[in-house]
Parts: sequence; structure tokens; C-alpha cells
Amino acid sequence: MNEQPSPALAAAMQEVGAAVEAALDRLLPAVEGATEKLDRAMRYASLGGGKRLRALLAVASADLFGVPRERSLRVAAAIEMLHGYSLVHDDLPCMDDDDLRRGKPTVHRAFDEASAVLAGDGLQAQAFLVLADPATHADAGVQAALVAGLALAAGPRGMVGGQAIDLAAVARCEAGLPLGYEEIADLQARKTGALICFSAEAGAILGQAKPAERAVLRDYAAELGLAFQIADDLLDHEGSAAEVGKAVGKDAAAGKATFVGLLGLEPARAKARALTNSAKNRLASQFGPRSMVLQELAEFVITRRS
Amino acid sequence: MNEQPSPALAAAMQEVGAAVEAALDRLLPAVEGATEKLDRAMRYASLGGGKRLRALLAVASADLFGVPRERSLRVAAAIEMLHGYSLVHDDLPCMDDDDLRRGKPTVHRAFDEASAVLAGDGLQAQAFLVLADPATHADAGVQAALVAGLALAAGPRGMVGGQAIDLAAVARCEAGLPLGYEEIADLQARKTGALICFSAEAGAILGQAKPAERAVLRDYAAELGLAFQIADDLLDHEGSAAEVGKAVGKDAAAGKATFVGLLGLEPARAKARALTNSAKNRLASQFGPRSMVLQELAEFVITRRS
Repeated sequence: MNEQPSPALAAAMQEVGAAVEAALDRLLPAVEGATEKLDRAMRYASLGGGKRLRALLAVASADLFGVPRERSLRVAAAIEMLHGYSLVHDDLPCMDDDDLRRGKPTVHRAFDEASAVLAGDGLQAQAFLVLADPATHADAGVQAALVAGLALAAGPRGMVGGQAIDLAAVARCEAGLPLGYEEIADLQARKTGALICFSAEAGAILGQAKPAERAVLRDYAAELGLAFQIADDLLDHEGSAAEVGKAVGKDAAAGKATFVGLLGLEPARAKARALTNSAKNRLASQFGPRSMVLQELAEFVITRRS
Repeated sequence: MNEQPSPALAAAMQEVGAAVEAALDRLLPAVEGATEKLDRAMRYASLGGGKRLRALLAVASADLFGVPRERSLRVAAAIEMLHGYSLVHDDLPCMDDDDLRRGKPTVHRAFDEASAVLAGDGLQAQAFLVLADPATHADAGVQAALVAGLALAAGPRGMVGGQAIDLAAVARCEAGLPLGYEEIADLQARKTGALICFSAEAGAILGQAKPAERAVLRDYAAELGLAFQIADDLLDHEGSAAEVGKAVGKDAAAGKATFVGLLGLEPARAKARALTNSAKNRLASQFGPRSMVLQELAEFVITRRS
């Protein structure tokens, strides 16, 4: 397995990562006056972290259609605000109760619970504010399509619904009724897949691409998203197996159904590989070599070591 | 003081209240499948409650410009979803920690905390989904203006910022540094005023009104919103004073600065009256007698008994 992204992908990840960081810094409210604690919490939650997978999907997809970067980076920043809010709320004591995120204390530990709830709420509103702006696209139809796409991906039939199903799944596991493969694939399609799909689709919306092109990007991202989740389970399994006296990973230990647990180790690896190959072939057929960064990204999500 | 709305206002409140209830029922996700608990929590949070002040502002403003009700009721429903989410999150244990809302257990008591966080998150996304839809207005420019207006009113420089300032104010009071009049007026302008202003303005956006007409509705709603808050403090003060052995209301008892505490009883009454008169005069000058429902609404918010 590769452990590093290809030089071209590594360059794109670094470039887009730095550019979306700068865009977030510009598009988040300044830290000022009576709201300074909230303003700081929103920045803490969204700046300086993560692989920026969603941002790269949005920007690289938009690049396929010649969209100016100043536009695609606004969309990427809005998506990262939305993603950042979801992590803050998922980490809350009443949800997954996590103390650390990206190696730093979670927002409710660094600030307090009320600030974490409000920072997440504020980030969601700010994401929509950034999209519904002429600077994102002069055509209001594009702005509205981006808003509708993000709202659908983020809402009760997308990400929020997925998190609700995930919480219910823990109770089901404890009752001896763990989720099956179709159920866990559905959960992941909503919880993380919907926003990943929208990220790639957003580039096509911005580029006013043909419906067929948009559909290819969406299907590519759906396969990439599922491969990403299976790879996460594999990392969790392999990482933990290396530790003395602990044969299974933290998700399995927490009673959560995992793709590795459901499929077995080798079939899970094979499934992730097949998804990645299919995702890459879709792009190559539709867009040819200029989709190389997105193709390599699909490869990277299953070969990364963290 | 009047205690009841005028017959015309009472009829409008009842009619719009029932119609926005039906619109919410249509526009909220159905209760189904793996997300049924979340779906129920979203409905519990937004159906069957409240004065629907914001819905009436949006619909009556839109009526001034001949906007079809099927459009203005969608906007009213989106605003009520946003308002419902804000109440659910404000009631959380880490925020105001309330057990009752509109005479029913709060969402985190009727369901659980995680469901309350997620129901609020889902309602916010759903509100934007409803606005960015051709059924709300065929012109995408109108959709985008509605999204931007709601996002600004709801976000860190509006409602969420106001709630953050309100939480910080409690700590300041405990430290012997209560807010002054300008500070509490600023807090209320953000926490409740911004969404009330947007509600009236949304009718003008939907009606593609002239900027001057939109500004009049906005200024009217800003005065109505502040009068509403002062009236709340007066009700809190008078209600509690009627109870044996308790001379001040729950906000004052909780150490919160109130308009009554800051201005005194009679000056607070006079201020609310002056704001209401000004709000009514603005409308009468711009729109004449066809703005009667909105004028009577401004009167009602300071003469209501609950």
C-alpha cells in the first residue's frame, strides 16, 4: 500500500488546504466586542484542522469546469464551516462525549458546553450566508442551488439524520440487535456521505455543468465516501491490533457495528478497493486525465495511514 | 389597557396561525424509518405552539404587496422552524436549563438531550431548504435574498450572538457588573429583534418591494421587537408582584438586568408606548389603512396579558 499521497495530490492538498484556511479566516466573523467568546469558539472549531477532504473535493471538481478559485474557495469554506459545526456538536457530552479532536481539546472542553452549542449553530448559519452571496456566483440560481444542496446534505435526511441513526445504533447494539451491512452503509451514506457527495457536486453546480457531469461527480463521491469509511474501520482495527492485549478497535469495543466486523478483514479491504477503482474509472471516462487529482484522492482515502 | 386583540387582528392571528401550522406539517420531514425519533422531535419542537408572531409579521407584510399566501406561508414556516430551533437549544441544560416550554416538557425532557441538539440542528437546515426552493419564489434572486436575510438574522451577528451575550450577562451580573440600558437593548436587538425584523422584511423581499418600503417594514419591526421585550419585562414584574411575598419577577430574581429594573416601571411603560406609536405611524404613513393588521399587532404586543 502507498502511505503518502502522490506528489501531484500532495501539492493540491497543501495548496487548497492553505487557501481554504485563508478563506475561512476572511469569511468567519471577526473576534470583537460583546460576542468575542463566541467568535473565538467559531474560529477554534473551524480553523487549523483536518485533512480538508471536502474542501479539496469542491475545489478540484470546480477546477474541472474552469471555475475561478475565489468562487470555489468560498464554497469550500462554507462546507468546512458546516463540517466543523457537525464535529463540535457530535463531540458534546450528550452525544459522543469526546475530549479531544484533531489533537486539541474539543470546543466544549476548551470553552464550555453552551459556547460549543452556539458556535455550531453560528457556523451553520454562516455557511448559508457565504453561499447566498453574489461573490460566490453572480447567478442567483447557482447560489440557491448551492444552498438547497447543502441544506439537504446537512439536514434531517442527510448528516443530522445519520447522526441520529448512529446514536440509536449504540442502543440497538446494547440490546443485542447490531446493524447489518445495508443499515450501516445507509447510516454512513447519510452521516458522512451526504456532505462528501455535495462537496464534489458543488463544483459542478458552480461550474453550471451538464446534469450528466454532475451525476458522475456525485456517484464518484458516493463511492469515495463509502471507501473512506471502510478504510477508517480498517485503520481502527489494524491500529488497535498492534497494541498489546487489545485485539479489536475502539468502535468495535464501543459496541458499534463496523464494516470490518460485518464483512471480515479481507472482504472489507476488497470492498474498499473495488469502490475506489469504480470511482476512479467513472472520472477517467467522463473527464480524462484532467481529473487526475480527484482520481488520486480516491486512491489516497484507502491507502492513508491516519 | 386592552387585554384582547381587536376582532380584525384576532381573526388574522387565528387564520395565519392555522395556516402556518398546516404549512409546517407539510414542510417538515415525515416521521419515518430509522430517523423517526428525530423526525418526531422536530415536529414536537415546531408544531402546536406559540403566538406565531413572526409568521404573522411575514404573512401580513407580504399581503401588503399582494404576494400569494402559498408563498408567504412557506417563508413564515421557515422562520417558525428557525425560531423553534432557537427555543430548543436555549432550553438545553447547558443554556437556560428549562423544563417547560409553552406548557409542555421541553424537547430534551420529552426526548433526550442529544435529540434536542439534533432536532434544533435539523430545523435550521430545513428552514434554509424551504427558502431555496422555486415554490417559495420563481425568481432565484428572491430565494437567495431570503436565505441571506435569514442567515444574517439567525447567525453570530444576530440571534446566536444575542444568546451568547445573554449568557455572558448572567456572569457579569453575578460579578456585580449588570448591563446598562444600551447594552441590554443591543442584546435584545440581536437575540430576538433580528429575527423579528427579518420576519417583516421577508414580506417585502417576497413582494419585491421598493427599498424604501422594505426599510419602513424593518424599522417598524425593530420598534415592535423592542416594545415586545419591554412588555415582557413588565408582565414578568407585574405577574410576580401579584404573588404573595415576592415583589420582583423571575428575570430580576435570576440576576438578569431588565428594562423595568433599568428604567423604572412608569418610564418603561412610557418607552414601550412611544415605540408602539412610532411603529404604527411609520406604517400608516407608508401604507395607509391596508396596514391595519400590522398596526394593531404593534398595539397588541404591549397590551397583551401573557
